[in-house]
Amino acid sequence: MAGPQPPGEFELIARYFAPIAGSGGLGLIDDAALLRPARGYELVVTADALVAGVHFFADDPPASIGRKALGVNLSDLAAKGARPDGFVLTLALPKGWTEDWLAGFARGLAAMAGEGGCPLIGGDTVATPGPLTLSITAFGSVPAGRMLLRSGAKPGDVVAVTGTIGDGALGLEAHRPDRPAWVGRLSEADRAFLADRYLHPRPRTALAAALQSHASAAMDVSDGLVGDLAKLLAASKAGAEIDLDAVPVSPAARSAVMAVPALAELAWTGGDDYEILCTVPEREYPSLGAAAEAAGIGLTRIGRVTAEAGGVRYTEAGRPRTFARGSFAHF
Amino acid sequence: MAGPQPPGEFELIARYFAPIAGSGGLGLIDDAALLRPARGYELVVTADALVAGVHFFADDPPASIGRKALGVNLSDLAAKGARPDGFVLTLALPKGWTEDWLAGFARGLAAMAGEGGCPLIGGDTVATPGPLTLSITAFGSVPAGRMLLRSGAKPGDVVAVTGTIGDGALGLEAHRPDRPAWVGRLSEADRAFLADRYLHPRPRTALAAALQSHASAAMDVSDGLVGDLAKLLAASKAGAEIDLDAVPVSPAARSAVMAVPALAELAWTGGDDYEILCTVPEREYPSLGAAAEAAGIGLTRIGRVTAEAGGVRYTEAGRPRTFARGSFAHF
Repeated sequence: MAGPQPPGEFELIARYFAPIAGSGGLGLIDDAALLRPARGYELVVTADALVAGVHFFADDPPASIGRKALGVNLSDLAAKGARPDGFVLTLALPKGWTEDWLAGFARGLAAMAGEGGCPLIGGDTVATPGPLTLSITAFGSVPAGRMLLRSGAKPGDVVAVTGTIGDGALGLEAHRPDRPAWVGRLSEADRAFLADRYLHPRPRTALAAALQSHASAAMDVSDGLVGDLAKLLAASKAGAEIDLDAVPVSPAARSAVMAVPALAELAWTGGDDYEILCTVPEREYPSLGAAAEAAGIGLTRIGRVTAEAGGVRYTEAGRPRTFARGSFAHF
Repeated sequence: MAGPQPPGEFELIARYFAPIAGSGGLGLIDDAALLRPARGYELVVTADALVAGVHFFADDPPASIGRKALGVNLSDLAAKGARPDGFVLTLALPKGWTEDWLAGFARGLAAMAGEGGCPLIGGDTVATPGPLTLSITAFGSVPAGRMLLRSGAKPGDVVAVTGTIGDGALGLEAHRPDRPAWVGRLSEADRAFLADRYLHPRPRTALAAALQSHASAAMDVSDGLVGDLAKLLAASKAGAEIDLDAVPVSPAARSAVMAVPALAELAWTGGDDYEILCTVPEREYPSLGAAAEAAGIGLTRIGRVTAEAGGVRYTEAGRPRTFARGSFAHF
């Protein structure tokens, strides 16, 4: 006898995804969704694909996977100065998927959608013989012509970052099943803090409007500070002087680097921080700082933009420092 | 010695995807894209995920895969009455992908983007240990409040379809490596015609504006006429009387059904037609018909909407006919 049939696509949508859709849309019942930016606004669009075993561990808590999948897109929108409007999810479910898994995934996704004010507006669910694969396209609004680009940095601008840098890359090591030896030298609280930072990025949505008003260029730090700064400066045809001693580091990350000094390189070049890297005209910096403080988000100046296109000079303890590995490579 | 390194993500984008981006956008160099609907218009959003071995054969010509991946989304937009504005692609490349494959894929994608007036505006490329997986989110414009829905069919409306029905499902059989015996009884021209219809759907973009003006409800036939009509009528809380003898069939499909009468069921319930199924008030039908004629697209009335919610009565050669299998199931 065959067991109970798994629910079909329409039941899945009704049970797990319709509650994330909010009340304004078409309730996911049509083939398409609608977006109408407010008058004078335009839409920012960002997309990320995530594959089990590549971008997350297949046995990560499903709620964490759901939360992070949307979170990394909200992080992109925040870096563009955009207010979230909604997202589309395509989900390829592997053989042996369970309703428990899907319920957990939907719970995490719904929590992030609620926190970010970003309802699910549409998508597609298919089967795959391969690993679970998901793709999110997210939408946000900015005043027309005012999307923050990578290319707006000007010589003299302050270079700043939100939050702390390096937790994501160190947290991946602290979270992975085959943890390296140094992880055993951390306190359990530090290990848990770093793993949480890797699993649960906090998109800086609350700073988006202030970034849009005050920053000259921005991007989120997803592939490592060093590599992402190089990309921003290349787009801006500028350089920078960066004081590595000023780069904000969490107490847990500091403990790790104290234990193994070579980990500093991983902190600065590894990925998954999902903090905002921005450049800000000096006269605008106090306003952005005040907005960050009001939002409860740390903002730290780490250097200055220079006119030397392509040149990034890093200083540590008064000495120049170079990096062999720029950033996480996707292939 | 290691062989030559495969190109990195940025080179891939520059070499294969930037040429599909058109001249209006950000050239795929930022983290996000921009969309600005014209005043008084809103954006229709549609998404489809496709997995090698599930939605296409891994060794299908890469240009065909690229063409179809965008084509099915353009078909959705046309059915909503929307003019294409752009699309986002996320691509998960399997182990052993080649530049030749990617070049072919991009060529097909570019051709469809050009024909549809739908530039690539952004995306993400990642690696997967599983099969090639791609997800496209496409955008189109409709006058605000005028997106064609599934839910607008009214009793008395004409039920009509574009093109011919059944070629996609028969074409899949004609194309697959393990062809069923009946395929051998077709002429090579008929076999090639059906396989081409399966591989290369023709989105009815040229009819989108007229559908938006004249139809009461529409969707594209992707999961089979019978199942898709049931979905449209359920959303509209209506029923229909359908004359199966009136459903337009290509000469090649007719040859197949003449050879094996049971194939009629596959033609009416199988997927991959990517024609438009619509309901049209009687007084609007002549205008839609004239627009279809002007666009060189066949439009055929196949029945009428009734007030009997959920009831679809099919007639063939004067006798009622029922269907065991409604439409393609995704799980």
